[in-house]
Amino acid sequence: MRPNVDPVEHLIALLAKLPGLGRRSARRAALRLLMDPETRMLPLAEALRSAAESVKKCRVCNNLDSRDPCSVCSDPERDAGLICVVEGVSDLWALERAHAHQGTYHVLGGTLSALAGTGPEELSVAPLLRRATEAREVILALPATVEGATTAHYLAERLEPGGVAVTRLAQGVPIGGALDVLDDGTLAAALKARR
Amino acid sequence: MRPNVDPVEHLIALLAKLPGLGRRSARRAALRLLMDPETRMLPLAEALRSAAESVKKCRVCNNLDSRDPCSVCSDPERDAGLICVVEGVSDLWALERAHAHQGTYHVLGGTLSALAGTGPEELSVAPLLRRATEAREVILALPATVEGATTAHYLAERLEPGGVAVTRLAQGVPIGGALDVLDDGTLAAALKARR
Ligand SMILES: [Zn+2]
Ligand SMILES: [Zn+2]
Repeated sequence: MRPNVDPVEHLIALLAKLPGLGRRSARRAALRLLMDPETRMLPLAEALRSAAESVKKCRVCNNLDSRDPCSVCSDPERDAGLICVVEGVSDLWALERAHAHQGTYHVLGGTLSALAGTGPEELSVAPLLRRATEAREVILALPATVEGATTAHYLAERLEPGGVAVTRLAQGVPIGGALDVLDDGTLAAALKARR
Repeated sequence: MRPNVDPVEHLIALLAKLPGLGRRSARRAALRLLMDPETRMLPLAEALRSAAESVKKCRVCNNLDSRDPCSVCSDPERDAGLICVVEGVSDLWALERAHAHQGTYHVLGGTLSALAGTGPEELSVAPLLRRATEAREVILALPATVEGATTAHYLAERLEPGGVAVTRLAQGVPIGGALDVLDDGTLAAALKARR
């Protein structure tokens, strides 16, 4: 009944692309929004537009934030000598929510993977090596997967000759588990018990 | 670390209010959007704005559509003498997806509930009674709940004296089940076997 360019169908199609929303829940979400255009739909549209315009990648650590350098990097109370290396921005956010880390971060943007053809040039490795020359300790908070371990090994080999202490998350990170689905307590414990 | 008005936190809070998205998936969705502001985030913002501006309630049947009367009501090939009464817009959309109904619809906007204090005045009952005077048959496609049955009974008592045939969805609607989570085949069968 609806032409292809129908705004409702178009909205449902875009919502269905979000992680966690299938087509059915996208439809329910669209309907809920349509029932309250003024109080739900337009505020969400405006929040998206505003975030898209204001959020940038931090030039120091690659975090996504409305400030550049990000609010972590520009906080004078954060220990810039202690850099926590994570795979992605979601891991950084998870560690921030856990209030587990008083230093700064470095978002690699992925892990090394021969299979996926991801080499060090595809990741933010060179900027990390530069930052590490001014740091006291680098914590490798990478996922407990083969790729995460490979990446940690690779980074440790390049970092340690520079004299910086290289530590890793210890117990608490389940094998194969992503950091950003862990509860805050587990994250805090794993960070405290780093080796 | 972030002030309260942070655009990212604000976006996550709004996304978390959508049905089907918890706080964790809202965060994942926000991050995914933030990673592609031009190709994902701004198009979604624009789709929301455009839908909010163009979608209205159909003056005839209460459907939500970019046309008023809606695309069903304004389709000359739909049988205006056959009105299918549903609780909500999501039920209308479910029946449309199932291509189960060649007539028109009437969205009640709820079911009668003494507990919730929903009387006939809170629902679109009077407009339905007016439309029914010109109709041949009214199909009561209400949920198989106590409130749905009460509402169907109430409507049948008011409709039948006017001479219109009143039918109901038959087999296939599970007890306590909402229409919009049924598969298309079940919906089509229930409609065909109406009594
Ligand atoms: Zn930063
Ligand atoms: Zn209509």
